[in-house]
Amino acid sequence: MPKLKLISTGGTIACVPGENGLMPALDAAQLLEYAGTIGADTDCVDLFNMDSSNIQPEEWRLIAAEVKKSVEEGYQGVVITHGTDTMAYTSSMLSFMLVNIPIPVVLTGAQQPIIHPDSDGRRNLREALIAARSMSGGVYVCFGGALILGCRAVKTRTTSYNAFESINYPYVGTVANGEYVELYPHRPRGAFRFFDAIDERVALVKLIPGTSPALLETLLTCDVKGVAVEAFGMGGVHNFRRDHAESIKKLVKNGIPVVLTSQCLYEASSPDVYAVSHTLREAGVISASDMTTEAAVTKLMYALGRANGEERVRAIMQEDLCGELGITQQ
Amino acid sequence: MPKLKLISTGGTIACVPGENGLMPALDAAQLLEYAGTIGADTDCVDLFNMDSSNIQPEEWRLIAAEVKKSVEEGYQGVVITHGTDTMAYTSSMLSFMLVNIPIPVVLTGAQQPIIHPDSDGRRNLREALIAARSMSGGVYVCFGGALILGCRAVKTRTTSYNAFESINYPYVGTVANGEYVELYPHRPRGAFRFFDAIDERVALVKLIPGTSPALLETLLTCDVKGVAVEAFGMGGVHNFRRDHAESIKKLVKNGIPVVLTSQCLYEASSPDVYAVSHTLREAGVISASDMTTEAAVTKLMYALGRANGEERVRAIMQEDLCGELGITQQ
Repeated sequence: MPKLKLISTGGTIACVPGENGLMPALDAAQLLEYAGTIGADTDCVDLFNMDSSNIQPEEWRLIAAEVKKSVEEGYQGVVITHGTDTMAYTSSMLSFMLVNIPIPVVLTGAQQPIIHPDSDGRRNLREALIAARSMSGGVYVCFGGALILGCRAVKTRTTSYNAFESINYPYVGTVANGEYVELYPHRPRGAFRFFDAIDERVALVKLIPGTSPALLETLLTCDVKGVAVEAFGMGGVHNFRRDHAESIKKLVKNGIPVVLTSQCLYEASSPDVYAVSHTLREAGVISASDMTTEAAVTKLMYALGRANGEERVRAIMQEDLCGELGITQQ
Repeated sequence: MPKLKLISTGGTIACVPGENGLMPALDAAQLLEYAGTIGADTDCVDLFNMDSSNIQPEEWRLIAAEVKKSVEEGYQGVVITHGTDTMAYTSSMLSFMLVNIPIPVVLTGAQQPIIHPDSDGRRNLREALIAARSMSGGVYVCFGGALILGCRAVKTRTTSYNAFESINYPYVGTVANGEYVELYPHRPRGAFRFFDAIDERVALVKLIPGTSPALLETLLTCDVKGVAVEAFGMGGVHNFRRDHAESIKKLVKNGIPVVLTSQCLYEASSPDVYAVSHTLREAGVISASDMTTEAAVTKLMYALGRANGEERVRAIMQEDLCGELGITQQ
């Protein structure tokens, strides 16, 4: 019988009603009881019990360490219950902290507490365990019947049960009749590399028309080591009156790598197509291409932790580490 | 024959290849030639010729003034060609600057320059003119065969021809066999109110796990009059270690209205459901509910311009002015 580990971290799936609204309370063993028999020997670990709005880099390190330990302990798969609100950030970050992990790590959760009669939690947890028993190594999100590569997941719906989408990448698999069905194979491509010295001093700036360049330049005075800019469309920014391009260049000149991504949920960005953003590429801005914002910011934390100097950060950001980059790259 | 006005502002639809990439160059009359005969008498106005990444509040005022003039001049409809990158911001802003406009104002553009043989520009412009000849008063986006309420449009794809989606609202109409087909009626609900004294000193903050509260609090020292926070899921923020909730409360206490919106593209947010964000509502944060981020930030500019004091800003933000709020409100 396959040996799995269930790690609980909280989230809506584990919630019970509290005085000020829903609060995570159930532990892994309690959650597991709802999943029914899936033909695996599953050990439980309660890592913490948090609303995922509070998951921060410190929690990512705890989760990554527990997963690494699970590999060493000989588990064949890991399921992590997690709140939905930051699940895509966590699944992206774990994808980089656990590059080429030899066992499947499947994050799941729910839009309704598992104790609710119509909750999606039972199905999601059950399917995540089935997937973890069957899939190849890698980090995945299992939600609403879909297996999504962890670094391609985005939460796109606040309430519906199909809350997550696979962005710019095919769905990896699904579960049908109690069995995992592979749709788009994902395999580790090399040796497992654990890395948890990420540098979380990353700022994300989403531009709106009229954004003051001062808001970008103030980052020079904060303790920020890398910046991701969610620009317009293919990667456009103001370059006159309020000159974002000049502010971005200042950041780059001051040794702060800037990754340019798009506000558009789907499809790749490229600062090469239009004259208005051409100078950004010349100035050394790194294009996020078809990466999600969640993947771009967590990969930047990873790259800043691993690399010395802007050139090395750029090289890491432009390399496809685990499927996060390039399938729709132009 | 209906009398229409075509206002050109630039964008990809008007682009020709330049030294550093595509640059807007065609004027309204040149664009109109590509649209073919649509049974309307169309006058042309060249307002400016810009990449829409550079459209700023100053341009919004020029566009709004030209549209207002068109009403006074007796035009039955207005079509505005505009770059796609900020079109949803412009259509949202115009929706508030031109509340209850009695004639249809239809924004359109293209993913490929109209001079390209396979461009979507000819179809989009032609259908926008047909829609402007037939629709009820209001601001709309016409793109890829769909008519979208201006304050519900979001650009979701960087390259495909179906670049825009109607978010949390039905598609208003479509064009079939050269005629406008109404799907979900939209009508002005009262007297036309032109307003262009918007206050653009609005900052948008999109949170990521690990975001330093200093980045929120630094807004206290910038010339910012209102803040929109793109929070996690239903409206979650960190409330320990890095305490976003405290920082947001500081902003509110200092007289800066804070609107809480979601990073999720679809469905409404509500800071009432989870304990972690409960205190935000108590602190006076305004929920964007089912408004798009584009509508929330432009409506905040409108509310700040119109209102004196936080209570009045809140009242405006929570009132549905033109269909931007409430259809999926919880």
